[in-house]
Amino acid sequence: MPLLVMKFGGTSVADLARIKNAAEKVKREVERGHEVIVIVSAMSGKTNELVGWVEQTSPMFDAREYDAVVSSGENVTAGLMSLTLQEMDVPARSWQGWQVPVQTTSAHSTARIEDIPRANIDAKFAEGMKVAVIAGFQGLSPEGRITTLGRGGSDTTAVAFAAAFDAIRCDIYTDVDGVYTTDPRIEDKARKLDKIAFEEMLELASLGAKVLQTRSVELAMRYKVRLRVLSSFEDNDEHSGTLVCDEEDIMEQNVVSGIAYQRDEAKMTLISVADRPGIAAAIFGPLASAGVNVDMIVQNISEEGRTDMTFSCPVNQVARAQKAMEDARTNGDINFHELVADTDVAKISVVGIGMRSHAGVASKMFDALAKEGINIKVITTSEIKISVLIDRKYMELAVQALHDAFGLEHAA
Amino acid sequence: MPLLVMKFGGTSVADLARIKNAAEKVKREVERGHEVIVIVSAMSGKTNELVGWVEQTSPMFDAREYDAVVSSGENVTAGLMSLTLQEMDVPARSWQGWQVPVQTTSAHSTARIEDIPRANIDAKFAEGMKVAVIAGFQGLSPEGRITTLGRGGSDTTAVAFAAAFDAIRCDIYTDVDGVYTTDPRIEDKARKLDKIAFEEMLELASLGAKVLQTRSVELAMRYKVRLRVLSSFEDNDEHSGTLVCDEEDIMEQNVVSGIAYQRDEAKMTLISVADRPGIAAAIFGPLASAGVNVDMIVQNISEEGRTDMTFSCPVNQVARAQKAMEDARTNGDINFHELVADTDVAKISVVGIGMRSHAGVASKMFDALAKEGINIKVITTSEIKISVLIDRKYMELAVQALHDAFGLEHAA
Repeated sequence: MPLLVMKFGGTSVADLARIKNAAEKVKREVERGHEVIVIVSAMSGKTNELVGWVEQTSPMFDAREYDAVVSSGENVTAGLMSLTLQEMDVPARSWQGWQVPVQTTSAHSTARIEDIPRANIDAKFAEGMKVAVIAGFQGLSPEGRITTLGRGGSDTTAVAFAAAFDAIRCDIYTDVDGVYTTDPRIEDKARKLDKIAFEEMLELASLGAKVLQTRSVELAMRYKVRLRVLSSFEDNDEHSGTLVCDEEDIMEQNVVSGIAYQRDEAKMTLISVADRPGIAAAIFGPLASAGVNVDMIVQNISEEGRTDMTFSCPVNQVARAQKAMEDARTNGDINFHELVADTDVAKISVVGIGMRSHAGVASKMFDALAKEGINIKVITTSEIKISVLIDRKYMELAVQALHDAFGLEHAA
Repeated sequence: MPLLVMKFGGTSVADLARIKNAAEKVKREVERGHEVIVIVSAMSGKTNELVGWVEQTSPMFDAREYDAVVSSGENVTAGLMSLTLQEMDVPARSWQGWQVPVQTTSAHSTARIEDIPRANIDAKFAEGMKVAVIAGFQGLSPEGRITTLGRGGSDTTAVAFAAAFDAIRCDIYTDVDGVYTTDPRIEDKARKLDKIAFEEMLELASLGAKVLQTRSVELAMRYKVRLRVLSSFEDNDEHSGTLVCDEEDIMEQNVVSGIAYQRDEAKMTLISVADRPGIAAAIFGPLASAGVNVDMIVQNISEEGRTDMTFSCPVNQVARAQKAMEDARTNGDINFHELVADTDVAKISVVGIGMRSHAGVASKMFDALAKEGINIKVITTSEIKISVLIDRKYMELAVQALHDAFGLEHAA
């Protein structure tokens, strides 16, 4: 019997009525002849409440106890989902992570799934169970303690089950109806994509289009899991939502698939750094140790043995970055004239696997921004992405201009 | 190192401040040289919330899923308690029921503890851990599923751990400072007892003095666990609270230890039942099947082959009892003239192991009630208890009169 994985996020199971709504979608798939593995998140708000309690209790908390506490929200939803399905005459039962067991590393609160033995769940399917409901986000360490996979980890649970059980597809139900060419709140011509390549989804996810956890996309790409994002709050058929899939499965493809942005970026420049071998390590080592998430890095041409080094990071990490750099200067590890922080920038990226075979994407992007009088402060590029930093006040305008320039309101 | 079990109920861990207060009591015992096993309930209100969700989802719920859901409240408190202790530099870790494992029967939602293997926890004590925090109320079935022990089950968890680990004592921290001669809200001369015998505590617990779960008292009696009830909200020393112990450990003992009551009783009388062998079974079988908790049973002298049969039950079960009796009459299983229900009665009981060796307790009781003009409707007696049904409006007066008559405001 074909097996389908369906994952419901926090807003999709926020209360008993929504759990029932989700269960009806599951029942429909059972009636279509599927066995189903359902992955559930905690009711929305619950995990935050639990995390808040832990952080208030112990700022430098023992991550093993953190995991034991915050995993409880998913256990509640798993049981309630199973009961709801049973009420609808769908044979179902729930599993907590340790019962499967979802075997993970011991890296508490950021554990990685190592294996999902199928035996326990397969045995119940063989007995006539139609739906296995799994508490997402959690697993069991080799030491027998509860682990969690990090925020958004239920997506990863879903993809890992889809891979382990050779699912025909992994459907991620959420509060949006798919992946868009850009944020519809900024550009009302934003268009829902029917398909998107894994690589593109990865770039979009890491750029803040918070539809899927990045790691779940990586995992889906590695194990060739067909991943679909769709809405819990609409009626769906097999063409609903957005399918995240292999590049080869996408027939027609715009050169650019989407425009992403990150509003709260800062641009930091170390002026007149002594340019010597190992200088980059001397700068970015201390930043990493201080927990600064450095994103873009640009080094200008060196003049007379000195250079300017520019990097970007989230705006709320600027103070941390400044302290790390001043400390490194005091220690004599680096030498620079001045550290200039520009905290009023935003990052705009165009993403598309079509770029690989099409020249001119960069110049088209820069032209479109220039026409609107938007100055580009930093540029970085990867194989399928071009990112720029601009003044934050132009962010919405830039998204709209680029969406237009690449004709994203129309499918290819 | 002497090992102490400390159990904190829902009101004692209702929020982070109270968890901290409880943790301070635990730390004090560690400083006194004890190893400690802490049993925690869910934060007050949490279990009711979870039960409510289950019942709304599925009125005839699968008890296995019920247990998976409602056990989650204790998991949260166990983790938070462990974190709080760690913050106070007390080496602690938490265990959920399945991790110990607390092995139970498969009777979901009313499971009984079968065994508590010590190895896992002993190994951590040997490594220097000072406090094991255990999620109460829950265990693991032979099938590997989560079980719960029924409401108030954390008391039973505590006593079972005290027995398994040869604890010097099992301290039950609650929101009252001990066991009283009667309810202080009714009789302001009610006196806290320093000691009470297991047998007396059992009668009081089953009579609605909701300090301890009945089963935990039975278990303590069987395994000779010294059980102490005391307040979370006061400073305590080793003489605080009430010690529940063997009869032999109580030096001085009043003839009567306490006065218990149950407000919402009903008295039901089947008038003119055909008196034949098996008639009691024909009456009380259907009542049990209908879920009626029959308490007192009195059969009058038979006249001309017919008798009146009186029993009591909680007032909210009267309709169910009436239907069961009418159905049994319709089926021809029993034959009676009329079923009379008196829904305005209360039950008053005097309890004391001293009764065994002192005659005259019953007559003193009846005298005291007669002096107040209180009519007795039904009487039953056991070895250490005499119970009567009276009009509900006299309940408070009866409690006060009996408390006076047996001199309970003064210790023996």
